[in-house]
Amino acid sequence: MGRYVIGIDYGTLSGRASLVDTADGRTLASSVYVYPHAVMDAVLPDGTPLPPDWALQHPQDYLDVLDHAIPAVLRESGVRPEDVVGIALDVTACTALPVRRDGTPLCFLDAYKGNPHAYVKLWKHHAAQDRASIMTRIAQERGEPWLAAYGGKVSSEWSFPKLWQVLDEAPEVYAAMDAWAEAADWIVWQLCGRWVQNSCAAGYKCFCRKGEGFPDEEYFAAVDARLRHVVREKLWAPVMPGHCRAGGLTQAMAERLGLMPGIAVAAGNVDAHVAVPAAGITEPGTLLSIIGTSTCHMTLGASRCDVPGICGAVEDGIVPGFWGYESGQSCVGDHYAWMTDRFVPGEYHKAAAERGMSVHAYLTELASRLLPGESGLLALDWWNGNRSILVDVDLTGMILGMTLRTVPEEIYRALIEATAYGMRMIVENYNRHGVPLERVCALGGISQKNALAMQIYADVLNMPVHVMDCEQGGALGSAIFASVAAGVHPDMRTATEAMSAPVLRAYEPDAHSAEIYDALYAEYSRLHDYFGRGENDVMKRLKAHRGAAVAAKNGGARP
Amino acid sequence: MGRYVIGIDYGTLSGRASLVDTADGRTLASSVYVYPHAVMDAVLPDGTPLPPDWALQHPQDYLDVLDHAIPAVLRESGVRPEDVVGIALDVTACTALPVRRDGTPLCFLDAYKGNPHAYVKLWKHHAAQDRASIMTRIAQERGEPWLAAYGGKVSSEWSFPKLWQVLDEAPEVYAAMDAWAEAADWIVWQLCGRWVQNSCAAGYKCFCRKGEGFPDEEYFAAVDARLRHVVREKLWAPVMPGHCRAGGLTQAMAERLGLMPGIAVAAGNVDAHVAVPAAGITEPGTLLSIIGTSTCHMTLGASRCDVPGICGAVEDGIVPGFWGYESGQSCVGDHYAWMTDRFVPGEYHKAAAERGMSVHAYLTELASRLLPGESGLLALDWWNGNRSILVDVDLTGMILGMTLRTVPEEIYRALIEATAYGMRMIVENYNRHGVPLERVCALGGISQKNALAMQIYADVLNMPVHVMDCEQGGALGSAIFASVAAGVHPDMRTATEAMSAPVLRAYEPDAHSAEIYDALYAEYSRLHDYFGRGENDVMKRLKAHRGAAVAAKNGGARP
Repeated sequence: MGRYVIGIDYGTLSGRASLVDTADGRTLASSVYVYPHAVMDAVLPDGTPLPPDWALQHPQDYLDVLDHAIPAVLRESGVRPEDVVGIALDVTACTALPVRRDGTPLCFLDAYKGNPHAYVKLWKHHAAQDRASIMTRIAQERGEPWLAAYGGKVSSEWSFPKLWQVLDEAPEVYAAMDAWAEAADWIVWQLCGRWVQNSCAAGYKCFCRKGEGFPDEEYFAAVDARLRHVVREKLWAPVMPGHCRAGGLTQAMAERLGLMPGIAVAAGNVDAHVAVPAAGITEPGTLLSIIGTSTCHMTLGASRCDVPGICGAVEDGIVPGFWGYESGQSCVGDHYAWMTDRFVPGEYHKAAAERGMSVHAYLTELASRLLPGESGLLALDWWNGNRSILVDVDLTGMILGMTLRTVPEEIYRALIEATAYGMRMIVENYNRHGVPLERVCALGGISQKNALAMQIYADVLNMPVHVMDCEQGGALGSAIFASVAAGVHPDMRTATEAMSAPVLRAYEPDAHSAEIYDALYAEYSRLHDYFGRGENDVMKRLKAHRGAAVAAKNGGARP
Repeated sequence: MGRYVIGIDYGTLSGRASLVDTADGRTLASSVYVYPHAVMDAVLPDGTPLPPDWALQHPQDYLDVLDHAIPAVLRESGVRPEDVVGIALDVTACTALPVRRDGTPLCFLDAYKGNPHAYVKLWKHHAAQDRASIMTRIAQERGEPWLAAYGGKVSSEWSFPKLWQVLDEAPEVYAAMDAWAEAADWIVWQLCGRWVQNSCAAGYKCFCRKGEGFPDEEYFAAVDARLRHVVREKLWAPVMPGHCRAGGLTQAMAERLGLMPGIAVAAGNVDAHVAVPAAGITEPGTLLSIIGTSTCHMTLGASRCDVPGICGAVEDGIVPGFWGYESGQSCVGDHYAWMTDRFVPGEYHKAAAERGMSVHAYLTELASRLLPGESGLLALDWWNGNRSILVDVDLTGMILGMTLRTVPEEIYRALIEATAYGMRMIVENYNRHGVPLERVCALGGISQKNALAMQIYADVLNMPVHVMDCEQGGALGSAIFASVAAGVHPDMRTATEAMSAPVLRAYEPDAHSAEIYDALYAEYSRLHDYFGRGENDVMKRLKAHRGAAVAAKNGGARP
């Protein structure tokens, strides 16, 4: 008789469940369900328009993932429900929604259906940047002890700026919500009937620290008097690590999903963080990079180091016993897709089709024939702002070096190189601030599909890049957490050693390429600082012009 | 009985003859012949490969234009050969070739057919930049009196850097040539049997000044001892203005072309400069912009002003009695075409085709719906270097402000705006240095076809832009010169008043757009100086990396 667990990974556009053997981490079946509402960034389901920088989701989509994917993996694997002993899940974060005391999302209620603030604010909802900046300034002025652990800046992607935006722009929604729940915790709540706040999201996205709790009321009162009691009014649930049992699967949910009632439901987790055990990382020195539409970088440290510009350092935040460090790049696969989707001419599509390749693969083949430096191009990878180490969503992309001979594959390669330079900026920043790194473990779609990108990363970083043999690091990672929550394994280290993925392919740096990239990286660094650290804020001013033009157009002030 | 002349305009890819009525400037017939060899920038006709930055032409193509286009305009117009009284022509410049004493191009001889240096070096041959820089430095060190009139810099597009490259890289070609002839003068030579150097090309491209002649021998000797006698050895023909008669059409050529022998053949001219009378300009204050693949800007001044970074100020250089000022932008229509040809996705082509539009027209329509500032983008228009006012072929393109929402029409509009900012940089530079401008007259393909670009130019310059009703400013301009050379009109002013083109459409600046563009131009100016004036020479360093990579690849040093 096997002992199986289900790990569910909720991404930006879909949710995936994997049924995993706790003995060896083998995935017996896996099923994806694409969110019907995807990302709502233009209109609500009823047609209500959304302003720029908004990104919402619909919580019904999360429930639909359970209803479709769990029966599917049971069916496909042939595993009996009695042999499934636990379930754990992870979601992008901070992805949060306003709910009633009984867990009902406000957007499920007729009174709020047309109110954008009643929906889930997705991690990449960037419309609270002004509030994030104010929260940073006040934390600096007050000398808040937690600020340095979060890279010195409050991100607009985190929980409190988003919640404060609700309060300011839709006080009636703020008043009507009994809880401001992370999506992961809300799904766990649906499964086990109990709201607990997972310590990973609470730690990284809500400044909740081990032994200290959330920032104190005086800070929130200084930000906005109405926020003084925000924690006790809206974030009152107990905080619990992801390897702990939040509760047992409810009878109703067990029947609905075809599982046994009472099996362990682990506290929620953040999608990127659960992948650290999936990649087999149990010690400092390795950076786990999950390279997809965006990239999350996670690493473990023996002690607290204040690293500027990272997303956060949280004690026990990733696995117990270590400080977990998180940083990120907000635009990686999205960056390549922007190029591939919008700027590749018809003849490339034709040539790719004739050879039975995707345009991505075709461009990659052409780009891989170029030597480092040969394109003559250099880009800043800020098409979606800069998460680390500048923490500034108002930065935008730049590319230079074009001549009349410049062809699409050169730009494509330059965009890949730009993301590699952005990653090196993060790695060097860790090294300089007491978190030394020697190796990269890579997960995520780009790592599996794009060998050119991985070799460029190895060359630019001058460091080995090990791509793990795991297409679903999130689901496997959640399964590892589930195995501990269910008591199959006694602790995370044991579970990780039993269940983590092996290395699929190792990319070693080429010395000659690394030397050229050293010089190109120096150019990147200089422009990074010029445009990113205030020497020339042209990107922000252009963004303001853009905003004014869009407003004029929408307001009809100009033809 | 009418009095007709033929004007021939030799462009970069084709030559066009127009048969024009001297009474009113009406074009009775016009015929284009596309050069069979086009621009040779990769290989010679025999397959000999060319290095980067080379651009050659084949002189046979120029003769083919005569053979095809002159009989065609006679046929089409029905004008009798006896009523054609003169012929004049203009060619891009400096476009020059090595020839024997009898006018035979070296590339026509078997011994030199495979030698790239035996062919015509086209204006955009940029492989002599290093020599141009040395010539600038030596002129500065010696305090050469002519340097300031040429914007303070020797351009790699001009005659002596190209000739010096021949001497250095192919001394046998240098030794074998008896003359280094401008293509215009070589064609005139073929028509009338006499080599004269036209004062326009000699003035703008060879530093030959009214009353002063060419730079003195000491300067050339300081550049390279072998060049001491370069003028008397290789540029020994008399210098003559374009409205003068170089000679009469030879018997042989008259028979070949179907014209009467002995009719006036005017001295040659430069393609851009002949358009000034075509646009009816007889006084200072108006900038004539010929906006095609690149843009040439010409204006008249009552006196000599030293304007830094222009191509040149030559007394009587354009029309007698005025200082003629020339400046230019090396990449305008080419810039838009680069985008349209290489970076517009298949669905745009499809949508354009469905609406029966060109992709250019479709993109223009989409781009014209955007307000100033709405794209959030800013570009530097240096895809082909910067001719004025930085005079630096090693600069490259830049664009910033991209987000994941950026679409092709936004980039297309940003490229148009960038060329408008580049033009404003030139206009402000004139204004600052004693050559005030109040109005733009536009000629060239872009001015006729792209109303969006013209409105953007008017808004960015905050100045009226008058597009002239003349599709062939070069051919009409040459016809005006021919009418004076033939003695039909007594002088250029009278000829211009009789024959020039009327205004087709006037674009007036919009005050609100002009205000926004003022702010965006300030951003452009700052980046122009940052990247273009030595604060950050990243573009040059990237170009060097590119050169090294290409060399490594060609040399097989790297896989």
